[in-house]
Amino acid sequence: MTRIGPVVVDDCEQTRAADLFATIADMSPDKAGVSRPAFSEVETAVLAYLEKVAGDAGLAVSYDVGQNLVMSLPEDAEAEKFVLVGSHVDSVPMGGNFDGLAGVIAGLMCLLRAHDRGERFARPVKVIAMRGEESAWFGPCYIASKTLMGVLSEEERLSQHKQDGRSLEDHMQGVGIDMAPVRAGKPLMDAATILEYIELHIEQGPLLIGKDMPAAVVNSIRGNHRHKRIRCIGEAGHSGAVPRAFRRDPVLAMADLLSRLDEAWLSIVQKGGDLVLTAGVVHTDSERNAMSRIPDLVDFSMDIRSQSAETLDGMRELLHREVAQIERERRVRFEFDQANLTAPALMSGAVVSGLEAAMERLGLEPMVMASGGGHDAAVFANAGVPAAMVFVRNANGSHNPDEAMEIDDFLVGMSIIYDHLTEGAAHAD
Amino acid sequence: MTRIGPVVVDDCEQTRAADLFATIADMSPDKAGVSRPAFSEVETAVLAYLEKVAGDAGLAVSYDVGQNLVMSLPEDAEAEKFVLVGSHVDSVPMGGNFDGLAGVIAGLMCLLRAHDRGERFARPVKVIAMRGEESAWFGPCYIASKTLMGVLSEEERLSQHKQDGRSLEDHMQGVGIDMAPVRAGKPLMDAATILEYIELHIEQGPLLIGKDMPAAVVNSIRGNHRHKRIRCIGEAGHSGAVPRAFRRDPVLAMADLLSRLDEAWLSIVQKGGDLVLTAGVVHTDSERNAMSRIPDLVDFSMDIRSQSAETLDGMRELLHREVAQIERERRVRFEFDQANLTAPALMSGAVVSGLEAAMERLGLEPMVMASGGGHDAAVFANAGVPAAMVFVRNANGSHNPDEAMEIDDFLVGMSIIYDHLTEGAAHAD
Repeated sequence: MTRIGPVVVDDCEQTRAADLFATIADMSPDKAGVSRPAFSEVETAVLAYLEKVAGDAGLAVSYDVGQNLVMSLPEDAEAEKFVLVGSHVDSVPMGGNFDGLAGVIAGLMCLLRAHDRGERFARPVKVIAMRGEESAWFGPCYIASKTLMGVLSEEERLSQHKQDGRSLEDHMQGVGIDMAPVRAGKPLMDAATILEYIELHIEQGPLLIGKDMPAAVVNSIRGNHRHKRIRCIGEAGHSGAVPRAFRRDPVLAMADLLSRLDEAWLSIVQKGGDLVLTAGVVHTDSERNAMSRIPDLVDFSMDIRSQSAETLDGMRELLHREVAQIERERRVRFEFDQANLTAPALMSGAVVSGLEAAMERLGLEPMVMASGGGHDAAVFANAGVPAAMVFVRNANGSHNPDEAMEIDDFLVGMSIIYDHLTEGAAHAD
Repeated sequence: MTRIGPVVVDDCEQTRAADLFATIADMSPDKAGVSRPAFSEVETAVLAYLEKVAGDAGLAVSYDVGQNLVMSLPEDAEAEKFVLVGSHVDSVPMGGNFDGLAGVIAGLMCLLRAHDRGERFARPVKVIAMRGEESAWFGPCYIASKTLMGVLSEEERLSQHKQDGRSLEDHMQGVGIDMAPVRAGKPLMDAATILEYIELHIEQGPLLIGKDMPAAVVNSIRGNHRHKRIRCIGEAGHSGAVPRAFRRDPVLAMADLLSRLDEAWLSIVQKGGDLVLTAGVVHTDSERNAMSRIPDLVDFSMDIRSQSAETLDGMRELLHREVAQIERERRVRFEFDQANLTAPALMSGAVVSGLEAAMERLGLEPMVMASGGGHDAAVFANAGVPAAMVFVRNANGSHNPDEAMEIDDFLVGMSIIYDHLTEGAAHAD
């Protein structure tokens, strides 16, 4: 036995987790970090490796009709209702090794721990290693879980791979998925068979590092209102020769808009509201822009997220109200692309409480937080499955080669889930 | 004879001017508008074409040591002191055909008119077709006139071409300029030999159109304080996962800065001050930026201009004061490249009066205005040469394919200069 703070783990588990992560990182190298494209051969190879590890250890393994790997204790293989633990194995290009994969390995290690210790779960547990979740490859996100729940739209199914231009449908067929039920919008998995969905994930922000805590329970997933491109159109002119009153400067109009939204953000946060706002991509026209030229236009992205659907609606209204005012004041014009909307997802109070109780039993200070990023858990939650997540402390955010999760923190997060899964059973034995 | 309002021009001059502009536009096409890179083969070809036109008409032609084309009546070719009329032939990429070229063709047409009519100038006149003036190619502006006056700095001389990365020095050598005296900071032309410098230029703003006047005399040129690149550095992160208090968002910091400067600008203009301010180039890092990522940095240009050196100084101080405050408030860092400073240039009262008197003699309402753009005239003025400019009405500003100067307005502007050049002589004959 080894102690990580108050949490006790088995002797071999630090090595086992480190080995699993390292082996899979070696299978998916990129120029920097790792690349595990959604619905690719690399992804299939990672599933096959996990299948072999689980099979060699005596676990039951199979593939569902979405060609996701499903693992369980042998006695739970045929269970009709089960707690589902998992996440996705794909990554963004030049991504980190932990976003997604940590949740899969956490589930597998729960099974291995139970198997090694000869312990039973309170209810049957299946661990799912899902395929494509990242939007980096085709545009749509949560593809595997949407497919399982029967909510992958036609538009998403026909979206094109950003590199080879082939459709998602093509790629899904390529890894052996029968697309007939997917096209028909039929769920590949009955949501009613899932007692709970639990997903461990690295935190993509700095809260746990700031609070010096290894893990926390996630009680909601922020929804978002996003525009890939808002264009502000003004009028080009000589930077020195056009007096202020004659200008239609789109960059100053954008700056004005962002400053107004930033003020609204501050005020909402000061009142205890939940909101984040990002203009991550900003470009004047690189073919025409010059230091001595009033630009004709500027393009910028807008990503507004909140746990509250009401706050999201309010910000959307504010955005358009401020835009209308700035258009009048500065004689510019804003063009919006189709907004991308995702509703906030509430985690199940019962599952959140269960995981909090597990933290307390382990001697950890219970902590609950919101997830800023979207996750497969939101898809299951919105399909009616009681769901919750465990976040593990992680430096440097996600979607980059510098993701930095400590194995010990991971084992704490995995132990929280294990304790929750075994809780009733331990008393029953 | 043809009348343009009160101004009389020779019959062939409308066609001649239109032909000269059209031929040179055809020599320098771009995807849109024209491109005549500074110190390029296209520029050399334009000078060679003008040399041939002037030579064929019986004018004296030569190249100075800066490889600029110098044209005159044969009898003025060896004059030790002379009035210099001219401008530059280079353009910005995808620029208009008139910025620069109009001043050169105006000078050439003054020579052709005198030659055709058998008239003499009051004092010897040389017309100069200069090379690179636009900052779009290397960063520094007024390169040819600075070289002539011996004030091209080492930093400017070593600046890199924006497309091929080769130094300005390299490009200057490439068109046959002996760089030894330039490196030594020696003037290639003695300012004391220039009795007056006169430059016709399209107006780059909307004032003459607003006043429905074909031309005006320029009595001052705005100075500027410019940065090609200010970089604001923050900290990247997941757009959904980092709460406001943890953010170091460089785009919102830039927006804040621009909004503060915009407010200061409004207040200065309301108090009757002279100021224009432009951030013409704005880019997040296109390799790393994404809708769902707080950007690590944003680069933007800054072009601040005023007729008043005091206002420029005040804005420079304000810029750095606001930056320091925003750095503290938003935990970002701003990096400035070397500022490009040009002092405001006062035109010569005598030359301005001379040109105003010419307007009156021609039956035009005299008008005097400031120039927003910088011009070679500022370099000559700051070297002690009595200088002035004539602006010609022009729609759509400059530095874009839509520059729209009417040939008739051009001929009015050219006639003002011609009348001024011939004034004493006409009486003397």
